[in-house]
Amino acid sequence: MINQLVSKIQKTGAPIVVGLDPMMKFVPERIQKKAFAEFGETLEGAAEAIWQYNKGIVDAVYDLIPAVKPQIAMYEQFGIPGLVAFAKTVAYCKEKGLVVIGDIKRGDIGSTSSAYATGHLGKVTVGSKSYYGFDEDFVTVNPYLGSDGVKPFMDVCKEEKKGIFVLVKTSNPSSGEFQDRILEDGKPLYEHVGKMVDTWGSELMGDSYSYVGAVVGATYPEMGKVLRDIMPKAYILVPGYGAQGGKGKDLVHFFNKDGLGAIVNSSRGIIAAYQSEAYKDTFGPENYADASRAAVLAMKEDIAQALA
Amino acid sequence: MINQLVSKIQKTGAPIVVGLDPMMKFVPERIQKKAFAEFGETLEGAAEAIWQYNKGIVDAVYDLIPAVKPQIAMYEQFGIPGLVAFAKTVAYCKEKGLVVIGDIKRGDIGSTSSAYATGHLGKVTVGSKSYYGFDEDFVTVNPYLGSDGVKPFMDVCKEEKKGIFVLVKTSNPSSGEFQDRILEDGKPLYEHVGKMVDTWGSELMGDSYSYVGAVVGATYPEMGKVLRDIMPKAYILVPGYGAQGGKGKDLVHFFNKDGLGAIVNSSRGIIAAYQSEAYKDTFGPENYADASRAAVLAMKEDIAQALA
Repeated sequence: MINQLVSKIQKTGAPIVVGLDPMMKFVPERIQKKAFAEFGETLEGAAEAIWQYNKGIVDAVYDLIPAVKPQIAMYEQFGIPGLVAFAKTVAYCKEKGLVVIGDIKRGDIGSTSSAYATGHLGKVTVGSKSYYGFDEDFVTVNPYLGSDGVKPFMDVCKEEKKGIFVLVKTSNPSSGEFQDRILEDGKPLYEHVGKMVDTWGSELMGDSYSYVGAVVGATYPEMGKVLRDIMPKAYILVPGYGAQGGKGKDLVHFFNKDGLGAIVNSSRGIIAAYQSEAYKDTFGPENYADASRAAVLAMKEDIAQALA
Repeated sequence: MINQLVSKIQKTGAPIVVGLDPMMKFVPERIQKKAFAEFGETLEGAAEAIWQYNKGIVDAVYDLIPAVKPQIAMYEQFGIPGLVAFAKTVAYCKEKGLVVIGDIKRGDIGSTSSAYATGHLGKVTVGSKSYYGFDEDFVTVNPYLGSDGVKPFMDVCKEEKKGIFVLVKTSNPSSGEFQDRILEDGKPLYEHVGKMVDTWGSELMGDSYSYVGAVVGATYPEMGKVLRDIMPKAYILVPGYGAQGGKGKDLVHFFNKDGLGAIVNSSRGIIAAYQSEAYKDTFGPENYADASRAAVLAMKEDIAQALA
């Protein structure tokens, strides 16, 4: 799957992943009204609204991009119906030929991480049969529990030819509270996590990049530069572009000299583009998906210029 | 809810939480066959088997214990039907008067942590209505993203009078890879996380303990002793007793002088007691729930002796 991701990035010329992180305040009123008319103001109604909203965006941008990243929390908040919408979104995006990165940030002790890996990347056995649960192509993994928590994901990745992105340096303002703490050797914790990503990744190589990638926030470009060197074979999933403050020029250091090695996420900046200063006068809520397409094209251009 | 947890622990005399972490290999064949006869060898069939298995255990032990801790990964691996079984288990345990600790180990950047907190502890707004998603009483939270990732849970806890347990030192063998790393000041990372738990907890106090608790593994009793002092007002959720190797005598340092301050989890040791050396000759699969009851009573005695 890492080989497919790389080849799709090359084909589209867009190292971009669209974060499908729907909030009700992003969903145009027309879509909400229609869903509520059918299902009432219920969790099912909210889930239907989110699903229809996602579908509109995916239909508008799928030919431009290699991948999407649904953030499961945004679905999980609506309980079971929300998770049904997550599963539908994953399946639909795969139908459209997109690589799906489940942003689930799971991580636990061995047998429990195995269960998460099984549910999101692999197949679970039921009697004499086996079934995929959510069936994403990649998931994000939290490393706080160490190798025990990460290796079970790697085992499933090996079997299924899928991949993970391990949180190394996250994009949020307080990420430094623990991640930036300096260890005895004078290096920050995130560098040590980066080194482990490199070690784990060496056990699970694709053609040119590893099945084990890393998450490093666009909001910390200098750290990105150091981590790029520490983990030369890891694809870096870069959140924090756009709404969180990361800019095209900040992204340069996340890429390798081959022009590959990083994929930049934008969520709100794409999916709620129609509400932004840049697009709200050109595209109203009726044309929210067209605004998303315009925002993807602008982001592609911004990154291309930065890398040129 | 922390006050309720403390009072239930005092009432039952059992600082014990039963981990409802079902695996298919624990579920007696009779229950599996019945579920598969009704739903086929499907995800729905597996979910039904797990739910019936859980129900049997809860019915057999609910009067002895204050709380249960379903591990969501074990349900999530069966996709949507598995999560339906999780939600049913949570609701049923609450009906039985048990405090429910959702072992979800979530944690993300601000708005995303908010969504998890909403889905698991709070209410989500849909139009003019609001709904609880999974509605646990407590959840476990991963601190790797810092305060941004934890505070949104605290906000919901404040509103709902619910609580969290933050991962400080986990019970697994590789937990030391990052958690034990010594920082510049000569202290390990887990102590710094413990100090943050104390700080966060001071903002959200119940009568005698904080709504912000901590997870510290029974497998690391010396670290438990240090962390007990660092976080005097935090309830410590102690996994790793039993199957993972933690023993009654290891638990002493996790408690405060008031005999409170810790609640010890056992999962496999209780729910699969009928398969263990200690109980398999007395209780067969038909009486798996009675074996769980006997195991709870033995654990209660073991802890009481250690604390005496």
